[in-house]
Amino acid sequence: MIPEDHPRYRSLAARERLADAAREGIVALEGLTAHGRGEAFDYLIGERTTESALLAARTAAALLTTAHCPVISVNGNTAALAAGEIADLQKASGALVEVNLFHRTETRIHRITALLEEHGVNVLAGRAERLVPLSHDRALCLPDGIGSADVVLVPLEDGDRCAALRAMGKQVITIDINPLSRTARTATLTIVDELTRALPNITTACAGLDSAAAADLIGSLDNTYLLRAAITEIQKRLEHALD
Amino acid sequence: MIPEDHPRYRSLAARERLADAAREGIVALEGLTAHGRGEAFDYLIGERTTESALLAARTAAALLTTAHCPVISVNGNTAALAAGEIADLQKASGALVEVNLFHRTETRIHRITALLEEHGVNVLAGRAERLVPLSHDRALCLPDGIGSADVVLVPLEDGDRCAALRAMGKQVITIDINPLSRTARTATLTIVDELTRALPNITTACAGLDSAAAADLIGSLDNTYLLRAAITEIQKRLEHALD
Repeated sequence: MIPEDHPRYRSLAARERLADAAREGIVALEGLTAHGRGEAFDYLIGERTTESALLAARTAAALLTTAHCPVISVNGNTAALAAGEIADLQKASGALVEVNLFHRTETRIHRITALLEEHGVNVLAGRAERLVPLSHDRALCLPDGIGSADVVLVPLEDGDRCAALRAMGKQVITIDINPLSRTARTATLTIVDELTRALPNITTACAGLDSAAAADLIGSLDNTYLLRAAITEIQKRLEHALD
Repeated sequence: MIPEDHPRYRSLAARERLADAAREGIVALEGLTAHGRGEAFDYLIGERTTESALLAARTAAALLTTAHCPVISVNGNTAALAAGEIADLQKASGALVEVNLFHRTETRIHRITALLEEHGVNVLAGRAERLVPLSHDRALCLPDGIGSADVVLVPLEDGDRCAALRAMGKQVITIDINPLSRTARTATLTIVDELTRALPNITTACAGLDSAAAADLIGSLDNTYLLRAAITEIQKRLEHALD
């Protein structure tokens, strides 16, 4: 057990939660390693939401609430870390939620769906088809979900699939604490923040947006600026790393 | 199976290898997350051996080959990723190899020993005693191994144990791709490099060192310089990250 007053409580608790989810077959073992990568970048960015990440979250809210068919694509790590936050965002944004896995098995799909439903998420059901231009089962998605989406929020995505969704003409929002990743650079909009901090920021922003504000945010979206701002934050931290 | 056309095939393949080792009980689930943190820093340093890391590897060879009782401490991640490289370094340096685990169980000790022996490592056997000033089973080591060592190579170590070994008066060499970690800052000598690149560099250097060259390398060892050089490499990469 990690004491709640530990300065890195949130980070250590998340790590423990993911290891438990791996034992339950919800998180792929590869997902634990991916999470470790995220921990390193979150440490470098100071384990806090930066101003540019908050702007990105508000812009994400604008894209989701003005989309014709917004879809949130949920994988094992996202479900394990933030099922409740996904439920809140679904309510605030009206987006569909589809379970979509890199390491896909029917068992994992069912377990993740059950976990999300326990937390109040309305999970899209249906028969997956090979609609995304990718090899193997990563191509699978639901025709009425990601297949029909104009805006897809893909937290913790891999770069390949992000690029494939872009190639299908979709606007892709990602939450990726690594501003250098291919996902971060390929997405329409990248929120460089830790998942459980970013999701509630999008949810809050959905509630407060009128259509003029949404149009303004979308009109001034500059993803390269957002990535540069995150990199600058990391550089500032490195300057004083050995003090 | 990771598709071979995936742009991050190498990194994902290593991740899969560790996941397999976790399924076999060789790597702890916590080791997968730790590996992910390492991946992130390797990405930042450019997935290559820097000049300062090569100097550090040569200095490590000097310390190992001139030690009275050099010991290589091997954990689950090291065995899973680099059993063959450990065998080569043992031959080149004459060091003892001891299995020493953070998440210690007898089963894991046996499995890791078997894996190392399959790759030609001569693994020190014996009855572990509580010799390291740490709580719980992390204190355990072999009296004829780490207990008697003057120089210990501890790849992928945790900061606590690195500090405890230093407090016992031992010279500690670590391989840690994160130049900001407590391990990196506590060790006598830190090789800021990825494990499977660093180990062969030490092995090669062992063969080419005479005692004068070894004395020179040890005499000019400046670990803070090595850490600063690594941080500077990361900063340079970040400068051009979005080019």
